[in-house]
Amino acid sequence: MRNILTLNSGSSSLKFALYPLTGAESLDTLTPRYRGMFSGLNGGTPRLKLQNSEGRPVAMEKDELPTRLELPDAMGRLLSWLDELPDLSLAAVGHRVVHGGRDYHQPVALTPEITAELGELESLAPLHQPFCLAPVTPLAERHPDLPQVACFDTAFHANQPEVARQFALPRELTQRGLIRYGFHGLSYDYINRVLPQQLGDARRERVIVAHLGNGASLCAIRNGTSVASTMGFTAIEGMPMGTRCGSLDPGLVLHLIQQEGMSAEALTEMLYKRSGLLGVSGISGDMRELLESAAPEAREAVELYAYRAICEIGSLTAALGGLDQLVFTAGIGEHAAPVREAICRGCEWLGLELDVDANDRDAERISAADSRVGAWVIPTDEERMIAWYTAQMVGLA
Amino acid sequence: MRNILTLNSGSSSLKFALYPLTGAESLDTLTPRYRGMFSGLNGGTPRLKLQNSEGRPVAMEKDELPTRLELPDAMGRLLSWLDELPDLSLAAVGHRVVHGGRDYHQPVALTPEITAELGELESLAPLHQPFCLAPVTPLAERHPDLPQVACFDTAFHANQPEVARQFALPRELTQRGLIRYGFHGLSYDYINRVLPQQLGDARRERVIVAHLGNGASLCAIRNGTSVASTMGFTAIEGMPMGTRCGSLDPGLVLHLIQQEGMSAEALTEMLYKRSGLLGVSGISGDMRELLESAAPEAREAVELYAYRAICEIGSLTAALGGLDQLVFTAGIGEHAAPVREAICRGCEWLGLELDVDANDRDAERISAADSRVGAWVIPTDEERMIAWYTAQMVGLA
Repeated sequence: MRNILTLNSGSSSLKFALYPLTGAESLDTLTPRYRGMFSGLNGGTPRLKLQNSEGRPVAMEKDELPTRLELPDAMGRLLSWLDELPDLSLAAVGHRVVHGGRDYHQPVALTPEITAELGELESLAPLHQPFCLAPVTPLAERHPDLPQVACFDTAFHANQPEVARQFALPRELTQRGLIRYGFHGLSYDYINRVLPQQLGDARRERVIVAHLGNGASLCAIRNGTSVASTMGFTAIEGMPMGTRCGSLDPGLVLHLIQQEGMSAEALTEMLYKRSGLLGVSGISGDMRELLESAAPEAREAVELYAYRAICEIGSLTAALGGLDQLVFTAGIGEHAAPVREAICRGCEWLGLELDVDANDRDAERISAADSRVGAWVIPTDEERMIAWYTAQMVGLA
Repeated sequence: MRNILTLNSGSSSLKFALYPLTGAESLDTLTPRYRGMFSGLNGGTPRLKLQNSEGRPVAMEKDELPTRLELPDAMGRLLSWLDELPDLSLAAVGHRVVHGGRDYHQPVALTPEITAELGELESLAPLHQPFCLAPVTPLAERHPDLPQVACFDTAFHANQPEVARQFALPRELTQRGLIRYGFHGLSYDYINRVLPQQLGDARRERVIVAHLGNGASLCAIRNGTSVASTMGFTAIEGMPMGTRCGSLDPGLVLHLIQQEGMSAEALTEMLYKRSGLLGVSGISGDMRELLESAAPEAREAVELYAYRAICEIGSLTAALGGLDQLVFTAGIGEHAAPVREAICRGCEWLGLELDVDANDRDAERISAADSRVGAWVIPTDEERMIAWYTAQMVGLA
């Protein structure tokens, strides 16, 4: 059977999923036969999680992983395993690519020229772009005829109004692409597509989706189109995250360099790796640990997180001119009921009334029946979105 | 007659006003006998504007200003002129001081120790603090017994909730004062004090004041107390301004340093002096010129300015949990009807209905009679606020 392989390659992990094509695909019916993740690559402690379509753990090979594993080796193991799977042929590979720059507003079939062009966007996302693209060339060498498709995290935001994309910087900087791209686009795209069936006939002209995962952003969607997002040029603007600071007075960045003598490298490390929930709590960047902790510093971090989400929702609602629905997704959004509760309480002024019981059990609809603004928990599925786009690009959906 | 002299000393200007004390002062009755400003100090083309209580121009001396004037010389000219005014004795001098750090939540009578302590806050506001404090010591030398009072731009915000003051940075940075102080506090304090008589019996639990001048920020005030402000650690966060960028992805600051090789000094110059309205339009940082221009770039800058104000109002409304009144003040807020109109149109979703005619004539109330959220134009008067605090500190009000 023909299959789509999706790859989501990061600085220390490689997520993958295998979607069999039945020939009558829709976004809903795509279901992975396997999904898995190598973690601890490129210097950490390598681990592999692999599960079948029923969510049961599966072994990829008898041997244990070596104590150190680089991305090419992980790719090699994945491909060898795929080669040996019975009844399998690969129809195409879909890659999650963080940055599509100004030109890529849609998924694109990769050629060596386009891959090189996307590589040149590395300076816009030095911590992500090289890793997303790393599997492309080795795969092309091993399977020259296998179609590869890039699906961009920026594409969903490409049609935002200019005012939402522009910083108040000298024009020449804006003209050469120093704008607010926004990220998590595959997640927002997926939620946006499943919304009609999830929400039934509820009004959905003006929707905010809160993608609260390890990275976190919020997106304002008007009639299916992104009009504003909290993440901007890089993946640290907007919400505080596990270890990232979120929005920060640019003058404070300059202060730390000029008055305190920090290097840009040390600052990058601090703002990406030691800030956010971890920095504020001093305990952990993992929301689950903070919610279980009795320490006041943990509570402080959770409060700041919810406060900032509440203010961002206010700002995005202003961009939308009002709010109909608020959707929570990704790890924290799908599973951290106390965080959702704190955020929804801060949105009561918008006409959002929480159904506390529904929220406590992670129900799909968590707003009260007569709440003017609806609140929802909808699991995101970026892999499925990639598989769907890839199947479409190769004419199989 | 005893008088209060107020001083507002900046990097290239010295604003001053002289308030006679009648002995039965209230904030309302304080009226300056003279007010004036030296501009173009410390390297520019020196100018002096001086007017009397009726707003008529007055000459300070017969001689013209020299082609170059430093702050101490301007102070000397001011003091000599004061010495020669008939029927004048100085009761006290009140200084606008940008930064009160974490400890000064109220105006304070200056001693050499306190002046030195405030000078140590220079690293928090290197572009402002040294200039505010520059007149203090020369004045004390010339008039050792003259009380001098510091009135802080940060003080009004000192009781904001911690979540509004805190960045999502490692705790130790927060603990040593790298927090959101907020500025324009003397302006907000003044508006907050005159609000009851201006608004009559209109609800005013939840108020946003938009101080839109050459610098610009917005402040959320709940029951008379600042709960959030758009300016943070420095005076470039928040709204785009004449030449300042406002909020900016911190990752973009790092990008310009690491990927494009800009120095922190060049960045500081760009973000403070060549961004904002000037940067976006490429034409001018002066809103009046942009409103008169037919160039699309000018319109673009004004649109971005209004859009950002609308989003900030959404965010501050979330911090307040709803909005009763929106007040415009300072140069743009008091005089730029098209800017107010664009901002108010973007707040219709909050229940704000503009009275277009009232707005066009800069009326005090610019919202329609049945508007759920009121909109107002109230001139600010930071000098009067300083004079009032200073008179109180020396027991004369």
